[in-house]
Amino acid sequence: MTIETAIEALRKLLGDRLSTNAAVLEQHGQNEAYYPTTPPDAVAFPEHTDEVSEIVKICGAHDCPVIAFGTGTSLEGHHLAVQGGISLDMSRMNTVLAINSADMDVVVQPGVSRNQLNEDLRATGLFFPVDPGANASLGGMAATRASGTTAVRYGTMRENVMALEVVLADGSIIRTGSRARKSSAGYDLTRLMVGSEGTLGIITELTLRLHGQSEAVSAATCAFPDIEAAVNTVISTIQSGIQMARIELIDANMVRGFNIADGTSLPEAPHLFVEFHGSPPAVKEQAEQFGGIVSEYGGSDFKWSNRPEERNALWKMRHNAYYAHKALAPDLRAMATDICVPISRLAEAIDFAVSKSAALDLTATIIGHVGDGNFHCALSFDPDDKAQFARVQDFMHQLAKLAISLNGTVSGEHGIGIGKIKYMAEEHGEALNTMRRIKRALDPQNILNPGKILPASNL
Amino acid sequence: MTIETAIEALRKLLGDRLSTNAAVLEQHGQNEAYYPTTPPDAVAFPEHTDEVSEIVKICGAHDCPVIAFGTGTSLEGHHLAVQGGISLDMSRMNTVLAINSADMDVVVQPGVSRNQLNEDLRATGLFFPVDPGANASLGGMAATRASGTTAVRYGTMRENVMALEVVLADGSIIRTGSRARKSSAGYDLTRLMVGSEGTLGIITELTLRLHGQSEAVSAATCAFPDIEAAVNTVISTIQSGIQMARIELIDANMVRGFNIADGTSLPEAPHLFVEFHGSPPAVKEQAEQFGGIVSEYGGSDFKWSNRPEERNALWKMRHNAYYAHKALAPDLRAMATDICVPISRLAEAIDFAVSKSAALDLTATIIGHVGDGNFHCALSFDPDDKAQFARVQDFMHQLAKLAISLNGTVSGEHGIGIGKIKYMAEEHGEALNTMRRIKRALDPQNILNPGKILPASNL
Repeated sequence: MTIETAIEALRKLLGDRLSTNAAVLEQHGQNEAYYPTTPPDAVAFPEHTDEVSEIVKICGAHDCPVIAFGTGTSLEGHHLAVQGGISLDMSRMNTVLAINSADMDVVVQPGVSRNQLNEDLRATGLFFPVDPGANASLGGMAATRASGTTAVRYGTMRENVMALEVVLADGSIIRTGSRARKSSAGYDLTRLMVGSEGTLGIITELTLRLHGQSEAVSAATCAFPDIEAAVNTVISTIQSGIQMARIELIDANMVRGFNIADGTSLPEAPHLFVEFHGSPPAVKEQAEQFGGIVSEYGGSDFKWSNRPEERNALWKMRHNAYYAHKALAPDLRAMATDICVPISRLAEAIDFAVSKSAALDLTATIIGHVGDGNFHCALSFDPDDKAQFARVQDFMHQLAKLAISLNGTVSGEHGIGIGKIKYMAEEHGEALNTMRRIKRALDPQNILNPGKILPASNL
Repeated sequence: MTIETAIEALRKLLGDRLSTNAAVLEQHGQNEAYYPTTPPDAVAFPEHTDEVSEIVKICGAHDCPVIAFGTGTSLEGHHLAVQGGISLDMSRMNTVLAINSADMDVVVQPGVSRNQLNEDLRATGLFFPVDPGANASLGGMAATRASGTTAVRYGTMRENVMALEVVLADGSIIRTGSRARKSSAGYDLTRLMVGSEGTLGIITELTLRLHGQSEAVSAATCAFPDIEAAVNTVISTIQSGIQMARIELIDANMVRGFNIADGTSLPEAPHLFVEFHGSPPAVKEQAEQFGGIVSEYGGSDFKWSNRPEERNALWKMRHNAYYAHKALAPDLRAMATDICVPISRLAEAIDFAVSKSAALDLTATIIGHVGDGNFHCALSFDPDDKAQFARVQDFMHQLAKLAISLNGTVSGEHGIGIGKIKYMAEEHGEALNTMRRIKRALDPQNILNPGKILPASNL
């Protein structure tokens, strides 16, 4: 009944698809944030759902943690083996199983990446909109309730996952939801699994909602004299009901990062990157209305991208923002906030982040999916400088507290993992006990990704 | 430890806000569907959340069922006291607590009705779109995951509830969600509570998402030579990506019901009732595209309603469809299916419903929120004629089976209650056990609306 005996049993099941190779363990224990490398004891590479079920049953029998692994691009340490155990690498389950164009949905295995899916969809006129920065796996995106630049228009994984197949802690395989657009038939297990970070079950299949590619798409960048002007433009735009497909805030430092990492020559001022989707007249109308608000707040230097390759380059640059931040201070680690607040409190929250981060005198950038009230303030720091690290953590802490006090959330899209676990009690209060009860009911042994989401106290 | 001792204790707490008056009990035991009147043992009228908590604690201490009651307009017997106990009438908790126009959200008590809310919102330019036929309470609508004619554009209660305050079975009060537009911070308890029909907790406050009233709104009715033509028009419209705000199918019998109940003189042929929301050019463009599809399928007799009072009359008629069905056979009871299927299977499902219901030789109508793949086939029957009742039930059964086989759901929007409980195992398979585990974890005594959603077998 140990991790070691679990590995023995798993090796019998999987042969060389169970690895204890040091490089493989290391790769599954790394992360793109600031956490120390935390490798698992072994990595399993399942090829189908029944195998996942068998693996989980073996882990259960041996009291061995099992941690689903997508692409390892999490920023909150979701996939780190903090209590050891088996990393369940889903990359071999990467088949697009069915494209139902007429119903605008698709059935995929969890290891399919968002880019792979959109490549496969290209000929259909449909696309899957959810776009976190990384080319993450769809299973990982569902597990962390990911979103990205298009959530303001198309929603997050919460709105775009229709149904799931899930292996539970006892190895049983369930199907949640259906391909119907709506249902009132019982508890919403799909939404319970989305965002549960592999702590309630292992996602082995997803049915996703697709959207029609718009006839007209128009993207633009525009510069502002200061960040307040950019933020006020966002607030006015959202409140006026203009249907944005994307509206992203980029502060002057981040623009400098883009110029370094991407070789662009944008003016080093706060920017908005926006996109409109619709029919040609609708896009024209929305863009004109938006242009009116921009000039009201002193925005300028409008650059329109109507050619797909220009737009792709723009959003690729935006998606790589985290790496562009790192390019500003290549030898340091980065930590990013992820708060999300009601849009009416956005200016206040960004103000706070700007002034407090400036006082730290570190490399700091602000970017955000501001149409949702969600933004990231990233700070570079030297992990060996304990005093500096403490100051950075204190900043993160103040911002998290602010988000909660503004009726927002400490995590708009990055998730809890191990990084935000300390805020769960404050954000959720008594409801945290309800989460614990659900966890205990579905995973009484606590073998599924232990040490994530729920503070350790009494689990 | 009985219902009687619970009533004694509750009387001490509530005084004359606990009623055992026969007429009051009767009123809370009635229903608009075909179930026998099933009164509770007492009706409590709480006035605030702490009182709900106290009531639930007393019920727990005395092992007494407690059943939240909104307006009693459920069609699946959700509020019937099948195991006796206390009906918790939320009608006194009917205050709109905060309208946050800038954030496009609102905080309400559960007893606020959808019409009351929209009255209160009128001056803001915002509205709450979810519109089941009845003027239901928002608490009841959330508890049953209600939708209506506008779900195709604005979503159901699943998409429009942002946060909840809930009293759990042990009397603890939790808050789920926040006023942020999105969050990745832990399990989605909001979505777990939405649609749980009062079996996991009592909703005592709701934060709801609002939408901007469109600059232009245009509604129309059009007639078709047969129901296939109408259904094919819907499928082509949805697949072509035209953004409908409403698209409702009405069969010829239902039109006759409207003509009787509402004094209209629509041609007795299958109709679509549609509505477009947007800017004036967008509405014009969508309406023209739709008109093209309609004529392709032989539709005619287009009647446009651009004046608000005409549109209101149209949708009021549609909302009262269940009562118009009853007007066709005033002395009988009605039973309605509520299946929802992928849009590509809608023609097949409606075909099946038309031919099978015709063979029964009963008053039958078909209406539906067909843009979502959801439709209702209502049948009138004499509850005293057991053979006839069995035939009607067999029809319902066949349609439910069909929905499941088409990867759909037995309930698009009416919920499970007691009426659809027999299909839960077939629709959800092993996932039903997961629902049971959650129920047991949150309500181990099974005092919250017992006998609903989950089949009795081992709960």
